[in-house]
This record gives sequence, C-alpha cells and structure tokens, in this order.
Amino acid sequence: MKLLEEYIRQKGVVKEGNVLKVDSFLNHQMDVQLFAEMGREWKRLFADVPINKILTIEASGIGIACVAAQAFQVPVVFAKKAQSINIDGEVYAAKVQSFTHKRVYDVIVSRKFLSPEDHILVIDDFLANGCAVNGLLDIIEESGATLEGVGIAVEKGFQEGGKLLRERGVRLESLAIVDAMDAKTGALTFRR
Amino acid sequence: MKLLEEYIRQKGVVKEGNVLKVDSFLNHQMDVQLFAEMGREWKRLFADVPINKILTIEASGIGIACVAAQAFQVPVVFAKKAQSINIDGEVYAAKVQSFTHKRVYDVIVSRKFLSPEDHILVIDDFLANGCAVNGLLDIIEESGATLEGVGIAVEKGFQEGGKLLRERGVRLESLAIVDAMDAKTGALTFRR
Repeated sequence: MKLLEEYIRQKGVVKEGNVLKVDSFLNHQMDVQLFAEMGREWKRLFADVPINKILTIEASGIGIACVAAQAFQVPVVFAKKAQSINIDGEVYAAKVQSFTHKRVYDVIVSRKFLSPEDHILVIDDFLANGCAVNGLLDIIEESGATLEGVGIAVEKGFQEGGKLLRERGVRLESLAIVDAMDAKTGALTFRR
Repeated sequence: MKLLEEYIRQKGVVKEGNVLKVDSFLNHQMDVQLFAEMGREWKRLFADVPINKILTIEASGIGIACVAAQAFQVPVVFAKKAQSINIDGEVYAAKVQSFTHKRVYDVIVSRKFLSPEDHILVIDDFLANGCAVNGLLDIIEESGATLEGVGIAVEKGFQEGGKLLRERGVRLESLAIVDAMDAKTGALTFRR
C-alpha cells in the first residue's frame, strides 16, 4: 500500500537491532485517517470472504482494528494480555512470546465472543516472528471459528513470521513489507 | 446518550461488588458502529473547543478513542502501561491505581507527542474512582498542553471520580451515568 510505505519512509525511524519505530503514526500516536485508508484497503483485498468479526490483540492492534472494522461493518474482539477479574471464567487462552518485552504472557478471549459460526479476520500492527498472530490463530482454532485471513500493517519480511504463515496456507495481506533496513543510513527496502 | 443507555440496559450485566460488565459491546468485544455514534456525540458536545489531539490509555480506551477521533479528524495518543524498549527514554509518566487489577502501575507517554501547543480531549471507557483519568491529567499538566475536556463512555455516578473532576472545574462529558445498580435484580438507574 503506497500510502503506508510513504508514511514509513517519511516518519519511520530505523534503529539498531532491527527496530523500526513507527510510533508517530501507528502504535503510540495514531493517525486515524491513515487507519481508515488501511481499513478500506483490507476490505478491498478480502472482499470475497464472509468476514463477520475482527480479532486483534492489545494494545497497539486495537486502534487499527476498530477503524478498519468500520469498513467491514463488523465488531472487533481484542485478546487480553492477562487475567482480569472482569473476565468471566470461561476463556480461550494461548501463550505468546514477546520479543519487545522479552517475556512470555497469556492472551485470553472470552468464549462468549468466538464460536464455530464466526468467520474471522485477524488484524495487527506488526508481523515479525509471528508470535502474537500465532497465539490468535491458536485461539481461533480452539473456538472452532473459521480463519478467513490475516491483515498486517507492517511486516518485517526479513523475519520468518510471514513466510511461515504463507507456508501454512494462511491468507496474509501485509500492507507494507520491509525486506531490508539499515540503521546507519536509515534506508528501507519494500517488497514489490 | 440514549443509544448507549439502551446498550447498557440490554447487554450490560450487573454483578456483585459494583461491577458493571459491558464486555459484549464496549471493552472486550467492541461495537464500532456504537463507537462512531459516541464520537459524533462528543464532537457535538465539544464543538466549541479547539481540540487537536485525543489522549487515552491502553487497552480498552484505544478503540473508542480511535473511532471517536474520526469525528474530530485528529490523531490519538495512548498512554502505555509499562516501560517498553520501543519507547524512547524521554517520557511523561504518572502512577495509576487499578481497582480491576488491584495494583499500581506506571503510565507513560513519549514527550514527542504532547507539547504546550496541544489542546487535548481525554477519552476513556469507564470512570469510577477516576484514577486512570487523573494519571492522564497529570501527564497533560506535565507536558504544558491544555486540557479541553474529558469524554467518558460510562461513569459510575455512585463513585467519586466524576464528582471530584467536576469540582476541579474539568469539563466532563459522560455519555451514560449510572447512579445506582442492583446485582440481585439487574436494575440500573441512569442520571437524568
């Protein structure tokens, strides 16, 4: 998606350790007009599948998912990162390893909000090793719902998450795929 | 706001311990069409003030804030609940006590995204004791930005957060104020 690539080139910052900071428009400060364009693009890409619900994971996936959901006119469910007394006992759960926070955590979704009748689009801001998305896919499988596809804003093409999902036959639509980046020069290479 | 009150009456569940569960449409599964109506209502209520940014707190405020921000055509910044290696060193920070999770945590906002030129609307899903909102107000004050108002989806009118904010002169617009609720009968009383 040209517009997202332009945002990343103009406002993204490449840091040592394969870190791409997009916190000025994607995952700390959030440009909701960009999100609306991204939502319309996913709607175009997934126009042929009967999506009735979007699943994402807290925290930075939620804003993108909610704005995108307006293009699909469906509700969003977000997986929560820790047990809360406000969650009923009956939950689907999966373990996710976070490289950002260097720990493993549980993600949970109430059983009330996923069922075999659901056709799910997973949305998240980043795809690197794919741990968060794989946790969501485990939860969808446990619920008996149908996974229709995965929509990612920024995929790090030089990490293996996207490759492994495509090999499994998951329909993955990443709006920008960064195949290489250089912290010294700030140079970015997008997949064509 | 009549529509939100109807949602709460029809889909909310009153539980022992003054818990009002609205997780089927507000803070776990999220009804983005409702959020869009809420955004338009806040835009109407705050039409006279020059809001250029919305500030919220992860996780359940983010979806409401991002959809509401489309009515204002402004970006959203969300306060993060823990230090992350993806946040630059320079942050505003405040302490927030969570009654839901029964602990105190730090919330942080990068200094890049709040400055004395900003006119801020704070958005959150719930207001009870006001701890989360007060943390955000501390951060706004530290940044030198102007607080234009606070928009809350559901205020628990029988807890003191709203009262204390109004006494401080904060312009607070809660779209539904629950003044009483009964876990035995499920009865809810909204402020008129």
